Amino acid sequence: MPTITRGVRDFLATGPLAHLVTLDSDGSPQITLVAAGLDGDDLVFASFTDQHKLDNIRRDPRVALSFQAKEYAGNGLHPYLVIEGRGRVSDGGALQVMDDLAPYYIGPGATFPMRNLPPGYVTRVTIERVYGVGPWREEQAG
Amino acid sequence: MPTITRGVRDFLATGPLAHLVTLDSDGSPQITLVAAGLDGDDLVFASFTDQHKLDNIRRDPRVALSFQAKEYAGNGLHPYLVIEGRGRVSDGGALQVMDDLAPYYIGPGATFPMRNLPPGYVTRVTIERVYGVGPWREEQAG
Repeated sequence: MPTITRGVRDFLATGPLAHLVTLDSDGSPQITLVAAGLDGDDLVFASFTDQHKLDNIRRDPRVALSFQAKEYAGNGLHPYLVIEGRGRVSDGGALQVMDDLAPYYIGPGATFPMRNLPPGYVTRVTIERVYGVGPWREEQAG
Repeated sequence: MPTITRGVRDFLATGPLAHLVTLDSDGSPQITLVAAGLDGDDLVFASFTDQHKLDNIRRDPRVALSFQAKEYAGNGLHPYLVIEGRGRVSDGGALQVMDDLAPYYIGPGATFPMRNLPPGYVTRVTIERVYGVGPWREEQAG
């Protein structure tokens, strides 16, 4: 498992959205935008309804999440971070994860603005590879 | 082939970067950030050096490109556009494509700032599916 560096943690704390890639049954990529963040050394995200992407992860746990920095670095390269890993979907706990992520996406002290919600699903991703362009770079994919 | 609507064209003309997904030999997704835009009804992007992602496309042409709007819409959903299709890589022509894209990424009348470059490679994507959240929405992936 790669080390999750301070640079990665600091970047994810700025609340960039994740372009989440899962694999359809024919192996082709599917993408949705989700809020995601670290919980210890895992990446987590929540869903309030069951979704096509969760079925994809249950069938093939390989996922990749790509996060784009909000600002250009000014050197012609736009910083981004890609995390690859394996996801596992569990029932319930969605609101807790959204509350945990709210300070990064909404602001300090924030909780998720909706409360009367179904238990939903939480996906926890075991990180296998970190790459991209930025201070968190371990490698560049090319 | 889906219709490329005015909404899609207008959004891509704002110069959002593409999270380009290709498939590694084991079928797992690989992601890099690229400049991409429409050329007629195809999506095109250029590379000045041969790269892992081009080898991926030569082996398995299935690609997905996800573009994130620069600004939140203010309704809790961040607009994004996903284009899925099949890519084919051809030799040469990279600078012309980068010049064609420069007005969207740099500004009106711009050309690509570097000139003394190898012929490179152009990937042309035949679009098969358009989805996401925004005025270009044909469907939401979920």
